[in-house]
This record gives sequence, C-alpha cells and structure tokens, in this order.
Amino acid sequence: MNPDIIKERQNATFDVEKLTYILDGGLEKTKRRREIESMVFSDPDFKEEDPNFLSRSERYDQAVRKSAQMILKLREYGIADPEEIYCYKTMVNGNHHEAMGLHFVMFLPTLYSQCDPQQSKKWLPLAESFQAMGTYAQTEMGHGTHLRGLETTATYDPATQEFVLNSPTISSIKWWPGGLGKTSNHAIVLAQLYTQGNCHGLHAFIVPIRDMNTHVPLPGIVVGDIGPKFGFNEVDNGFLKLENVRIPRENMLMKYAKVEPDGTYVKPPSAKLTYGTMVFIRSLIVGESARALSKSCTIAIRYSSVRHQSEIRPGEPEPQILDYQTQQYKLFPLLATAYAFSFVGQYMKETYHRISGDINDGDFSELPELHALSAGLKAFTTWTTNSGIEVCRMSCGGHGYSRSSALPDIYVEFTPTCTYEGENTVMMLQTARYLVKSYRQAKAGQQLSGIVSYLNEAKQHRVQPQPVAARPTVVDINDLASLVEVYKQRAAILVELAAKSIQQEMQNRKSQEDAWNNSAIDLVRASDAHCHYVVVKLFTDKLGEIGDIAIHSVLSTLALLYALHGITTNSGDFLQAGLLNVPQVHQVSARIKELLSQLRPNAVALVDAFDHHDKKLNSVLGRYDGNVYEHMFEWARRSPLNATEVHESFHKYLKPLRSKL
Amino acid sequence: MNPDIIKERQNATFDVEKLTYILDGGLEKTKRRREIESMVFSDPDFKEEDPNFLSRSERYDQAVRKSAQMILKLREYGIADPEEIYCYKTMVNGNHHEAMGLHFVMFLPTLYSQCDPQQSKKWLPLAESFQAMGTYAQTEMGHGTHLRGLETTATYDPATQEFVLNSPTISSIKWWPGGLGKTSNHAIVLAQLYTQGNCHGLHAFIVPIRDMNTHVPLPGIVVGDIGPKFGFNEVDNGFLKLENVRIPRENMLMKYAKVEPDGTYVKPPSAKLTYGTMVFIRSLIVGESARALSKSCTIAIRYSSVRHQSEIRPGEPEPQILDYQTQQYKLFPLLATAYAFSFVGQYMKETYHRISGDINDGDFSELPELHALSAGLKAFTTWTTNSGIEVCRMSCGGHGYSRSSALPDIYVEFTPTCTYEGENTVMMLQTARYLVKSYRQAKAGQQLSGIVSYLNEAKQHRVQPQPVAARPTVVDINDLASLVEVYKQRAAILVELAAKSIQQEMQNRKSQEDAWNNSAIDLVRASDAHCHYVVVKLFTDKLGEIGDIAIHSVLSTLALLYALHGITTNSGDFLQAGLLNVPQVHQVSARIKELLSQLRPNAVALVDAFDHHDKKLNSVLGRYDGNVYEHMFEWARRSPLNATEVHESFHKYLKPLRSKL
Repeated sequence: MNPDIIKERQNATFDVEKLTYILDGGLEKTKRRREIESMVFSDPDFKEEDPNFLSRSERYDQAVRKSAQMILKLREYGIADPEEIYCYKTMVNGNHHEAMGLHFVMFLPTLYSQCDPQQSKKWLPLAESFQAMGTYAQTEMGHGTHLRGLETTATYDPATQEFVLNSPTISSIKWWPGGLGKTSNHAIVLAQLYTQGNCHGLHAFIVPIRDMNTHVPLPGIVVGDIGPKFGFNEVDNGFLKLENVRIPRENMLMKYAKVEPDGTYVKPPSAKLTYGTMVFIRSLIVGESARALSKSCTIAIRYSSVRHQSEIRPGEPEPQILDYQTQQYKLFPLLATAYAFSFVGQYMKETYHRISGDINDGDFSELPELHALSAGLKAFTTWTTNSGIEVCRMSCGGHGYSRSSALPDIYVEFTPTCTYEGENTVMMLQTARYLVKSYRQAKAGQQLSGIVSYLNEAKQHRVQPQPVAARPTVVDINDLASLVEVYKQRAAILVELAAKSIQQEMQNRKSQEDAWNNSAIDLVRASDAHCHYVVVKLFTDKLGEIGDIAIHSVLSTLALLYALHGITTNSGDFLQAGLLNVPQVHQVSARIKELLSQLRPNAVALVDAFDHHDKKLNSVLGRYDGNVYEHMFEWARRSPLNATEVHESFHKYLKPLRSKL
Repeated sequence: MNPDIIKERQNATFDVEKLTYILDGGLEKTKRRREIESMVFSDPDFKEEDPNFLSRSERYDQAVRKSAQMILKLREYGIADPEEIYCYKTMVNGNHHEAMGLHFVMFLPTLYSQCDPQQSKKWLPLAESFQAMGTYAQTEMGHGTHLRGLETTATYDPATQEFVLNSPTISSIKWWPGGLGKTSNHAIVLAQLYTQGNCHGLHAFIVPIRDMNTHVPLPGIVVGDIGPKFGFNEVDNGFLKLENVRIPRENMLMKYAKVEPDGTYVKPPSAKLTYGTMVFIRSLIVGESARALSKSCTIAIRYSSVRHQSEIRPGEPEPQILDYQTQQYKLFPLLATAYAFSFVGQYMKETYHRISGDINDGDFSELPELHALSAGLKAFTTWTTNSGIEVCRMSCGGHGYSRSSALPDIYVEFTPTCTYEGENTVMMLQTARYLVKSYRQAKAGQQLSGIVSYLNEAKQHRVQPQPVAARPTVVDINDLASLVEVYKQRAAILVELAAKSIQQEMQNRKSQEDAWNNSAIDLVRASDAHCHYVVVKLFTDKLGEIGDIAIHSVLSTLALLYALHGITTNSGDFLQAGLLNVPQVHQVSARIKELLSQLRPNAVALVDAFDHHDKKLNSVLGRYDGNVYEHMFEWARRSPLNATEVHESFHKYLKPLRSKL
C-alpha cells in the first residue's frame, strides 16, 4: 500500500463503510452486491485480456463469449432479480458493453409487451432459449428521434397474407441497432404500415434476418456491422437493408393494433403504455451518470493523492498534486456532483417504481411530470458527466491519456448517453414544453402541484429588468434551504423569460412554431435551471435522512459546494435576476475556497465510499493501493507492440530507407 | 452534389475564394498549398486503408511506411522550406500523427543547437541519413513539467571517461517520448549530471539504445511501447529504463555546459536560448487549435445543412437541422472562434518571427511578454477547441460517434495539446505570474508597454464591490471597439482581484508561496480573461486589414458574435465588475439571436473558405458534395467485421449455447 494513500485514509473524519451503505441503499444491498462481485471476480471463466490490447474482431469475439457465459452462469446461480442481474452484468462488463445487450433490453421486453397470446406462445420460447436472437431496429441512416420521418415500409399483401418489408432509399437503411450487425438472427423492425392503400404509421414487425441454423443472411436481407465507433467496440451496431422481404401476417406484433387477413386495419386502444419504458430507461441513465462520474473521480482523486509534482514551497519535496488549489477546484465540485447524481438516481428509481404502481392501477396522473423530469435530468446529468469525465482525465496529466488509466474507456463508453434514448437538446426542449405549459396554466389561475408548483407564483410579474442592488437580500449563502430557494427562483424566472420570449415572437407575427424555435436557446436555459434546482433540492432533501453525524457533516459540505459552485459558474443568472448581489457573489467565491480546504482530508475517503472494486475500475491510476507506477510499467510491457523486440516495419521500411538516400 | 448544399452555396453573400486567400495569408500561399495538396493526393504511394480499420500494429506499420516514403518524396520534389514541409506532412498525415515526428521536431533540432563542432561532425551526418534515428527523452513516469524533479542520473566516471546512465527507481523510467518505443535507435536523454561528487542539474546526453544494424536493444537498455492511448495510435510513445548504461564522455551535448576529461564541470553561459523553442511550439499549437476547430466546424456545419430531422412547422417536410436555433447556437459561436483562432495563430507566427529576429540581434526585451502570451493562449485556445470539437461531434447526432465522421479522430489526436508542451493550468499560472508582476510594477509607478499596458490604470483602485446599477454605462454592444474595451477592463479587474487575493492571504500570515496557491483559482481566471481580451482584440484588429466589403461585413458579424457570446457565457464577470448592466446583458442575448440568423445563409460558405480538402478531412459527414449517406454505407461495408458474413463467434459461442440450456 502506498504510504500517501494510507495517510489519506487515516485523515478521514467519517466511517467510509457506513457511507457505502447509504449509497447502496442499505447494508443488505452492499452485502449482496459484494457477494455478486466476488462470484464474478473469482470466476476463472471471466478472466480476460485488456480489450485495449485486442483488435475490433477479437473484442467482439471476447464479448460474445462473455455474453454466452453470463447466460449460463446466471441460470446456474439462480440469479433472477433484475437488479441483481444488472449488478452481475456490470461487474462482468467492467468499463465496456455487452454484445447481446439489446436481446435482453429491447427484443425480449418488446415481445413480452406487444405479442398477442398466440404470438407469445410461438416467440417467447424461441427467444428465451436463444434460438431466436434479436434486436430492435428503429433508427434509420437518415432518421433518428423523429419517428414520423422513418421511411421503411411494410405493405400488406392480402393475396399471400404477407407483409412486404422494404428500404425504399439509402437513408431508410436501418442503422445503429446494437447486435444487429453480426449477432442477431431476428430483428423487430419498425416500419410504416401500408394496407388497403393507406398508411397507418409506425408499427413493429418480427423479421427473420439470418438462417437460424447457418446464421447466413436470408434472401433480400443486406445486413452488417456499421464499422468502428468512438466506443462500443464490443457491440456490433448494425445496418439492415430490406429488399422486398416477405414475412407472414402473424409477424406483425398484434397485441394492440392489428391487420386482419383481408387487410383491414384495427387501431390500438391507447399509446400511453410505451411511454413508461422510455421514462424508465432515462431514469436509469441518471444512475449511469452517477456511476461514470464516481468512477472518474475515484481514479483522479486517488491518483492525485499519490502523484507528486512541482513545488508549492521552494526547497520542499514535491507535494501531492491534490494539494494544489486548482486541482481541488477541478475535482471536488465533480465529486460533489457525483454524490448529487447518486442521490438523484436513487430518487428517480424510487419515483419510477412508485408511479409504475399507480400506472398499473390505471392512474396516469403523475406520468407527465416524471416524463418531463426524466427527460431533462437525463440531459442535465449526462452533459455534466460527459464534460466531467474529461476534466478528471485531463487532471491526471499525461497518464490520463493512457488507456491504462481507464478514463478514455469510461469516456467513450459513456458519451453516447448524450445522444441515445433521446438527444439531449431535444430532451431539454421536451422538459421546457412541460414547464411552459405549466407556467401558462399557473398564469391562467390553475393551482399546480408537484415539482413545478413554484410556477404558481408566476402571477407576480417577476421579470422586470431592474437594478440588481435595489433587490432585497435575504439569501444566506451558508444555508442550503436558502440556496434551494434561490435556485428555485432562478428556475422560475428563466421559465418566465422563455415563455415571454415566445409571446413576444408571436407578437412579431411569428407562428407559434417559429416563435418556439426562435426561443429555443431560452427554453433550454430554463430547463437547465429547472433541473439544476431539482438536483440541489434532492441533494438537500437527502441530508434529512442521514442520522450519522460525521457523514451528515461531510455530505453537507459536499452539498454546499455543489450549490455554491453552481452559483459561481452561473453567476450571471443570479445577478441578472437580482437574486444575489455583487458582494454575495464574491462571498460565494471565497466560501468555495474554504470548502475545498475543508474537503481535502476527506477526499480519498469520499471516493472510497463509492466502493468501486479495482477489477471494475480496471485503472492503474485509480488502484485502491495507490501503487500506480509499477502496475503501469507491467501493463505497458503486456502491450501487443511489445510482443517482439524489433517491429517488422524496421526491416520493411527503415533499413531500406538508408540505402535509398 | 447534394441539392441542399448547392443552395447553401448560392446563398452566400461573399466570395469564398478571396476569404481563403486571407486565411492562407495571400493568393500565392493558397496556390502553393494546393499544389502541394495535389502532389500528395495524386500520389499512389500514399493510398491507404482507413486507419480505423487496422490493428494498432498495422497502424504503426502504415505510419512508418508513410514516414519513410515522405522523406524520399520531399527530397525528390526538393521541398525544403519548413512551412512547405509542414504543409506536405499535414496532407499525408490527415487526421493522424507521424511515426517519426520526434526525429525531426526534437532530435535533429537539439543536435543542431547543442552539439559542439566535433559532435556536429559526427552526429549530424548520421542523423540526417537516418543511420541514427532519434527521439528526445525528458519526461519520466513519475515526473512531468517540473524538470528539477527528474530522477535519471548520469554519473561521470573519470577512470574510463564515460558517463553511467541509470534509472534508479520505477518512477524514473523515461515515459511518453514519441518514437522511443520501437522506431528510434538513439535517444537524447535528459539526466541529472553528477561529477566529482556534485549534482549539476539536468543535462542532455546522446544514448544509443538499439543496435544500428539489427535494431535489437543494447545491453542495459529496457525499451518498449507504453501501450495503447486515447489517440496517437500511429506513434510508438515509449519507455526507457537505463540499467547502468555507459556512454563515452563525448556523448554529453557540450555546446554550452561541459565536463572535462578529469570530471571538472564547466557551466553554460546563459539559459535563455532554449526558451525560444518552447515559445515557438506553443505558438504553433494556437494554429493547431484553429485547424482542428475549423475542421470540426466544417464537418458539423456541412452535415447540418444536408441532414433533415423532426419538424419546426407541423405538416411541412423535415427541415435542415441547421435551421434550428439550438443547432446554430452550438455551431456558429464555434465557427466564429475558429476564425478568431486562425487570426490569432497568424499573429503569433508573425510575432514570433519578428521577435526571433530581435533575439538574433541580442534583443530579448519582448521575449517575456511573448512567452507569457504563448503560454496563456496555448491553454486558452486548446481548452476551447477541445470542448468545441466535442460540441461539433455531438451536434451530428448518432453519426458523430461513427469513426466515419472523423470527429472522434480529430478529438483524440487534438486533446493531448491540453497537456503536452506545458500543462494548461500550469500555462495559465505562468501567464498569471507575468500579469501579477506587471500589475505590481504598474502600481509601483512603472509605465508598462505592450499588451499589458492596460494595467497602467491599476492605480485607480478599480475593484470596489459596488452596486452594479450605479456604474456609468458607456458600452455600445454593437461596436467592436467598445467591446474590446470592456474585455480589457474585465481583464484588468480580474488581474487586480487575483493580486489582491495574494496580498490578503499574506496578510493572513501565509507565506508568499501558500498565498499564491490559495489564490490560484483567481489567477487562472485572470489569465483566462487576459487571453480572451487578446483574442477579441486581435480579431477586431484583423478586420482593419480587410478591404473586400462583403468579406469585411461577414467577418465583422463573426467577430461580434464571438465577443457577445463570450459576454453571455461570462456574464457574471461583466455584471460583477459593473462593466455591463442587466438590461445590456439582456440586449446581448437578443442580439446574439439576430446574429445567428444573419450568419445562417453564409454558414456553409464560411466553412468552405477554410478549404479543407475532402481527403484531408476524411469525413463522410463533412464531404464537400454533401452526399453523406451513400458514402457512409460504402464505408461501413468495408469495415473489417464485414469481411465474413458469419463471424466465427457464432460457431464458437452462440450455437453451442443453445444446446447447453
């Protein structure tokens, strides 16, 4: 164990283990998580080479092997609880993704929810036994979020009682679905349904794409891998071109909408049910943000405690880089953010489960708010985490660029969350739509409830450009409740500003739609402020649940840092709105410096509490024992370019070069 | 040609070709650049597979081949002007790096500048004929920017007249030098010189590391590749462990310092000369920032003009995504930044050459200012570009994640500039040191000249927290000269704030050094504001040189957008300092929206003017003809995972899985 890191742990003022329980949601959950971890880490079947040393094809190969292995292991151990499966898979996959993920996350769930009884009888046994391996093919090369724009057609032919599936253009080729390129032999294809000369919009069809025995693509199917990406090298995201492929009528998923044998179209009763899955996945992504950021902070903070560099006082030994104020300023606000997002992730999961219960009882009343919240928070947390990972990486100096640090992997595997499951800007605008609608309702005299109830005060004409100094100053920058209030007011003011911008555009004879587009910058800003308020509020609320005094104290410091750091980085908003005055903003900056010093002795303990196992982190910089350099050397020596002492290029190009000159 | 992009070009209000001349520095330079481009692009010897389809070893192999090829071609064509060589190499290397770069950039120049006459006679012919291929080994695993911390030792043994080189610890292993791992047979090693029992600090030694014939590592040399990185996969960054390696006394570079045969150490006369190279490379990096950002903007803006998505007005066809205000708000400020940095890059190059002349004449007076400026601007431009590339990538939706977009490559090849040649935070603090020193001189009554002369006004006690509204308002947000002034004042105020923070810390009984560290956040902020001011000023100055009315008009719009966007993103600074009042900040936001609309018709033409050849961009999204989708499909089909229809993993893992269940 590195002596620096031992000393850091001795300096901690709280019980790390107890904080881990809080993060896991209780002692029992921590215990179970560790049981599952040790199952995976002691299992010789999951021993593997660092994927960074492998070619793309080898990486995919290794990932398929692990996917197949996991299926067997989970059955062997009888692990069936979704959360435990998720935990098990996370351990196996480390910083990478699962080759067969879409089969479990999209193919099976879609069959479960959209097959009629007869279809269930046929398809579920096939899919559950992996005879049918599947994916979900929605996005096309030319079309992403806008479902109405999808071009793939499914035209019903009553003569043969078949659908003819077709990719009429290059831009209509299905593009991106995970597992589509090489792994799947079936795809649920989303296509515009045509029957009896009419288009009935998007519907789902089960399309066999490869022979179930030979795995060779079927006639009319052009399928393959979309090529190397920024990350996700384990996953064969694929393309699918359909050239008049015929499937039986029964392959349309018919639990809701139907096409009768004669071609008569029967409408679905309601569209609200698919809504829930989206909300669920976006809520999960909030938790993913917390995980990625807490991993990155763990690596950067542990490394900063063992790395010595330059000098603060001349003549003294090189200090730990964590002693530099600039390093603390980079990392501690992110550490606070990782805690904030962890608690927000917990909240989203709990809320989802609570509301799911209501939905099953037919009560959809809370769904719109959760939908808006999950969209905005998905964008807010992934954007923050995305840039935060890079700050962590760059705070590690040169070694952050080495794949041995794991930070490049964490980044490239995480960054797609900003785009998939709802592109972030689109998400922010969806939340804004809900906020503006709520604002208008409040203005019209309706009493709002829930998290947007702060808009009830909108009647008071808050936004008047007025001298900042003229405002009364009631904010206590050391009091979290007071800071929650000020974030709330900022959100209210920015929602109002956006709503007024739309109104003004419409007064300038713009259509409702153009007015919306011309106010989009303000709308995104309003959503961002709303989400920021929610995060500060939920972090503060969480403190109320924590009984342990020492932990309460350190988490309060983190929460305060989170709130105050958000104020400095957005100080213009608070000053413009007259919520803070200039001396207060200066006080905030000064207070932040104090909080950095205050957190310094607890920094390593605070990342330890996330309890990311070394094998999960897979980072030489983030090792628990702090023994960075010897392991970096060992890792480098295993690198494939060192397989031979003399690379063949010397004989091929360098030696001949001399004689040519 | 895609009809959308044709239309975009028809809408341009200025002559693209003429703007290209301005960016290149004149018609003649554009002509010559295009000649060199066509030499490279028509040369069948440089045809190659997309490196993204290759393994690490294949990528390195291809890069060595190209490096060797380039040496022969440059001789064949008689290209000898450093700028033309740079241009030629840029074309060949595309978005990637040169395997043998360090031989040219560090090994040869160090020999030229630090060999004594006898050493020159021996080493220059060897190095120029590539018998000796070399690199520059300074950084160690445990030591980066702080040169005094380096641990490698060179101990003189008068008995044999040799130096004994040694890596006494794991952390002292040389780590990161480009070309060290596999390519070089010599390294210039920086080591602490010991002779006659005394340490004389860092000196440079020529160390043979591989046999010049067989390329096998020499006894006592442990050398290899440091393993895969975030980018730079073409380059064999290496490690070097020296186990009591003996080299003759004559292998110490002795132009300045010397060790006599008996071990007597002779001091060098002055240390100022190495200073210049650092300044030169940092100035070059400013230009690299402009190039990387202009490439990224080219890709994102062209793609946004052919990509159709969602709807603004219901029922109408999907609009070009460049019509969304949020998309414009992401991309146009970055486009303005790319122009700003291009002009700053030109300025830095010219200034360097001017001052170099002075230095050769023995006049060092302007060097400290240029040193401070190049450090700060290196950090300022690389940080901005680093995050800007990612904004461009994410603005391309899903396809931005595909390696076919080239954006991931541009990012990973660029991001190390934030760390190498001076870690950015360290750079900002170096600039801050110069600013604080200048501030103190001004306060002491000295009259400053040059770019920091604005600090002369420091005597007037500017920073008094006072009500914002009470300040007189003289800023015209539509007038660039007025905005330059307001940026200048912001810089002056933040420099003063940082200086006062140090003073206050010292009053609290902190040592000078601790006071500095406790003010580091303010110091970085001050440097940032200084650099921001310089960029706004240089962009504005450049406009004065432009005679063409149409070009002047569009560049003025860009400059205004650059300046105003900087104000909104830092509005807190301007409000706190009372430089702008609240209504003005609202006006700035409104004005930015107008500028976005104003730039919209010229956006594609403005990126066309950068004149990045398709073969250099190597991006399916950024193609000049806008024919994105067909080429993306073609690219994907060439991907190695599509070499076979059925991947071996099916037979190995997936088929057997079924029978095991």
